[in-house]
Amino acid sequence: MSAGLMSTGLMSTGQMRAAVMRNWTLEISEVPIPTPLPHQILTRMRACGICGSDLHMLQHGAEMRAEQARLAALDAPSISDPQISTAFDPALATVMGHEFCCEVLEMGAEVAAMNPAIGPGDLVVSYPVALDRPTDPRTLHTIGYSNTYPGGYGEYLVLDAARTLKVPDHTPADLAALTEPLAVGIHAVAKSGIQSGDGAVVLGLGPVGLACVAALRAQGIGPVIGADFSPARRALGELLGCDAVVDPAQNPVMVTWKQIGGDRPLVIFEAVGVPGMIDQAMRMAPRHARILVVGVCMQSDHIHPMVGIGKELTVQFALGYSSFEFAQALDWISTGVVDLEPVITDTVTIDQIPAAFAALRDPGSQAKILVRSE
Amino acid sequence: MSAGLMSTGLMSTGQMRAAVMRNWTLEISEVPIPTPLPHQILTRMRACGICGSDLHMLQHGAEMRAEQARLAALDAPSISDPQISTAFDPALATVMGHEFCCEVLEMGAEVAAMNPAIGPGDLVVSYPVALDRPTDPRTLHTIGYSNTYPGGYGEYLVLDAARTLKVPDHTPADLAALTEPLAVGIHAVAKSGIQSGDGAVVLGLGPVGLACVAALRAQGIGPVIGADFSPARRALGELLGCDAVVDPAQNPVMVTWKQIGGDRPLVIFEAVGVPGMIDQAMRMAPRHARILVVGVCMQSDHIHPMVGIGKELTVQFALGYSSFEFAQALDWISTGVVDLEPVITDTVTIDQIPAAFAALRDPGSQAKILVRSE
Repeated sequence: MSAGLMSTGLMSTGQMRAAVMRNWTLEISEVPIPTPLPHQILTRMRACGICGSDLHMLQHGAEMRAEQARLAALDAPSISDPQISTAFDPALATVMGHEFCCEVLEMGAEVAAMNPAIGPGDLVVSYPVALDRPTDPRTLHTIGYSNTYPGGYGEYLVLDAARTLKVPDHTPADLAALTEPLAVGIHAVAKSGIQSGDGAVVLGLGPVGLACVAALRAQGIGPVIGADFSPARRALGELLGCDAVVDPAQNPVMVTWKQIGGDRPLVIFEAVGVPGMIDQAMRMAPRHARILVVGVCMQSDHIHPMVGIGKELTVQFALGYSSFEFAQALDWISTGVVDLEPVITDTVTIDQIPAAFAALRDPGSQAKILVRSE
Repeated sequence: MSAGLMSTGLMSTGQMRAAVMRNWTLEISEVPIPTPLPHQILTRMRACGICGSDLHMLQHGAEMRAEQARLAALDAPSISDPQISTAFDPALATVMGHEFCCEVLEMGAEVAAMNPAIGPGDLVVSYPVALDRPTDPRTLHTIGYSNTYPGGYGEYLVLDAARTLKVPDHTPADLAALTEPLAVGIHAVAKSGIQSGDGAVVLGLGPVGLACVAALRAQGIGPVIGADFSPARRALGELLGCDAVVDPAQNPVMVTWKQIGGDRPLVIFEAVGVPGMIDQAMRMAPRHARILVVGVCMQSDHIHPMVGIGKELTVQFALGYSSFEFAQALDWISTGVVDLEPVITDTVTIDQIPAAFAALRDPGSQAKILVRSE
């Protein structure tokens, strides 16, 4: 047992402190420290971003589950896709937090052979899924949305060694914790098919929108116009490389786009994720524009198909990222291709997570709030 | 004045018989015979398909105009696109009908030099737009949705010579009139980006869905699964090349797709165009599928973005066709690459158009109803 494990008084009882979601409410309590399987590692959380998806889950998770059940009943016996992810039971404890940077404490017996790059004391990030049996996709859990694999809103995490990357030396844990949200932006940009010569409008300059701006800029794509009601977020947009930022309450974003982007092909990144935004993006879009939906809207929504038809729009939905995109994000952060440090607008302890969630319901000037373990 | 013009008793008075839309109602009356400008030709309608868009326009046009005005007011002073098409005034007479095959009667002074391929007595089809001044896009009218350029629900039409194609000899007017709806299918298929190795599900086997099936088959793309509640339309789907047809009231179309298409990439063509269909297509779609919306839904509609996000779907809206796709459609029809004869399920006279519209509100076994001038 490494020294790291001794840093909490709860360790001797096998318990750890965590922000626990149960029945769609969040509170601080103790949960068991997870036990690594032979292909896994036990780690200590060093930094973990609070993600908008977690806020959505807490606020709209019940509603979303009910709607999913309703649709499943309507659509049965349709098959579409095999269900591989083991969903969490909301009545049981779930420790959310999937944007984590951790320190390796203990390694399972098979790990040294599987991933010789990592060892105790290393900082690591991990693609946030874990499999009970490494070759059986039916045993897949999403770390942070699982009753078995707690995420970064607790002190300790178990990670799959095969999905874990060592954070290069001299890269702070805070920045490494931004690997996951940057990967979301990298994936959205890739999925959009945007290329040199096209331009972008990014609606919403929260962490997801800012990640899109950073990913566009890292690939030399522009002009990029950002839109957000918050002056602080607009300032972040400029810092990350927006050619112009717009307060939609003051000026239509498309007027600025036309001035700067002219008639070039346009991708609109919808990174707000509230009902009505897809409809708004469709209405503002010029003919033949593509809309990349990266903001997660869990409710039912309305659109005007005739607007899409009249302008022959494409609406592309994006989710997550590949393991390659995740590794790319870590590389860009550690080599300084992107500097996301300004995106971190606050840091809190585990005990302060419920208050931080409450604050983020009206994000104001906040972008990314990081949880730190000490 | 050619002999053709003498075939109606109204000709001497400069009037013609037509199904006239005014204030969103349709009735038979007399309207002035249009006068060709020097770059235009006067033609006599020989066959004209009744299009679902015309039914939609009559039923939902008022609602659509109100919604467009509401959105325009909300979005002002957004700019998106320059408005180039001179919209019709619903209080004035509009003669719809844009799927026409006509016989050339008279040619304007400039026509022989502009389009030496056509002459009096020729059967022609035309991309259904006309410009008052040939080089000024602001003077563009859509033939059949214009107070100035009557469409094929009347006896005579004025066409732009530059957009008019001679129908090859031995191609009947009835089949040539299907050039326009086939072009819609060709464009939808092209817009979808579907390619060899992919498969297709076509929702709705009305004229638009059948045109998609024909266009897919002409390019050797398959398997193609068709879905429609009507047994007669399903039979047409099979005749045009569907590998299987499904009654969605009996079996989920995706079960049949999985049996025949397996895991290959899928494009779902939504050719129904009523509220709820895009949502349904999104729900039945497998992961990473593309949905090509070619059915025109003029009302507000609802979707579940979380369904699109969870499966990373693409929703692509398509409208119309290019002049190249229009010419391609005529070529495929005249050379027998596609045989659309079975799609013509009824023929009516101009006087019977209002009754045919009423019948098509519940299409039952109907696909394409053609209007003929005699």
